[in-house]
Amino acid sequence: MLIIVTYDVSTETRAGRRRLRRVAKVCESMGQRVQKSVFECRVDLMQLEQLERRLLAEIDEEEDNLRLYRLTEPVDLHVREYGKFKAINFEEPLII
Amino acid sequence: MLIIVTYDVSTETRAGRRRLRRVAKVCESMGQRVQKSVFECRVDLMQLEQLERRLLAEIDEEEDNLRLYRLTEPVDLHVREYGKFKAINFEEPLII
Repeated sequence: MLIIVTYDVSTETRAGRRRLRRVAKVCESMGQRVQKSVFECRVDLMQLEQLERRLLAEIDEEEDNLRLYRLTEPVDLHVREYGKFKAINFEEPLII
Repeated sequence: MLIIVTYDVSTETRAGRRRLRRVAKVCESMGQRVQKSVFECRVDLMQLEQLERRLLAEIDEEEDNLRLYRLTEPVDLHVREYGKFKAINFEEPLII
């Protein structure tokens, strides 16, 4: 199945940027980053539980918002994309 | 059906913030904002086409990335949320 992970965190603070980097790292180990704070992870049920557990260990539930959306197969039917895919820019505002 | 709209735009520029405001306005007319750049819109097929057309009229395809994910009913089975839902803060960085 495909899980869409969306993560809302303030990147104005160093701690927020750090959490976003760590969330990205977890998601990228199971999928890919498609927007600055949106990730697509292809997982089975056991991996989903693992993904969720690892994400919950990284986020600050008092400050952040994390959503997981489960897409039904065939995924091609359920995703439309427009505009530029700019993977190379994702880290730019985070490194500064 | 529930459509998840995710929109990646640089909010460092005035034009980017303006586009995000306008995309939010379109999405909020058909649903609600759940994260700074994530929206959940409950629509039928005709409304989906309308939503898509209106969004494409607002974004800059050279600069931004827009993704629409279609969730299957029952939606409750396909969405998990964690952390704070801070709707009141969404406009803060946009107004400044």
